[in-house]
Amino acid sequence: MSLFQIIHFKRIADERGALVALEQHKTVPFEIKRVYYCTGLNPKFERGFHAHHQIQQLAVCVTGSCVMVFDDGVTREEFRMDSQDKGVLIPPMMWHEMKDFSQDCVFLVLASDVYDEADYIRDYPTFVQLSTQLRKSDVYSPAK
Amino acid sequence: MSLFQIIHFKRIADERGALVALEQHKTVPFEIKRVYYCTGLNPKFERGFHAHHQIQQLAVCVTGSCVMVFDDGVTREEFRMDSQDKGVLIPPMMWHEMKDFSQDCVFLVLASDVYDEADYIRDYPTFVQLSTQLRKSDVYSPAK
Repeated sequence: MSLFQIIHFKRIADERGALVALEQHKTVPFEIKRVYYCTGLNPKFERGFHAHHQIQQLAVCVTGSCVMVFDDGVTREEFRMDSQDKGVLIPPMMWHEMKDFSQDCVFLVLASDVYDEADYIRDYPTFVQLSTQLRKSDVYSPAK
Repeated sequence: MSLFQIIHFKRIADERGALVALEQHKTVPFEIKRVYYCTGLNPKFERGFHAHHQIQQLAVCVTGSCVMVFDDGVTREEFRMDSQDKGVLIPPMMWHEMKDFSQDCVFLVLASDVYDEADYIRDYPTFVQLSTQLRKSDVYSPAK
């Protein structure tokens, strides 16, 4: 099973241009409390390098392209984002990195909560340790 | 007083690129229930040409530029959108149009509610009539 959950958006296009609309609890499987966009992304640098404890996110390249890397602590997988009608869900406890930005890349993210530094895991060994613990508790919990 | 309420966003930029984050009830004065983006906008065509009964929106040109026209039924005003750290509030009962899109324009809108055709006023004479009624009730209401 892929680490990536792709969400396809409806794109309405005619001679005037294109429009993509994302609605909470419909296209977006959470309440949208934060929206952020990145531009002028330098392909010499990679971004991300963190996971979230709780926050869910939906990412899309509105224009241009980049490569997203997902890592659940065991498997590592890459996905090329190059379509404005295709988003990627970033679930909690998923280490993610972004790279190979095209010059025209506009990277848009919708998040399920406002910024909270305490929700970030920025140290990779800590992330692997936490995800291993969670995996064990998930497998061995008598309640499951 | 201008018809336009401009909201300035914090833009975090370094050699890696720029990031602008918008949060509900902070930068954005409402709950974000819908997000839409327009690209490939043809400068030969104008868009918008409607007002909303209830829905509030916050619009920004993430890249490129365009001109927004606001009309409250009495006054008509134009504003050039050309900055990713400056948004414009579109309040209810404000007729709005968008034009003069640059080739690289990415027009992003955050809305206070999901799509509802019943919330749209698409006929300009009807809009003027409704806004005149609202203005009169606002001025002459004994409760005010």
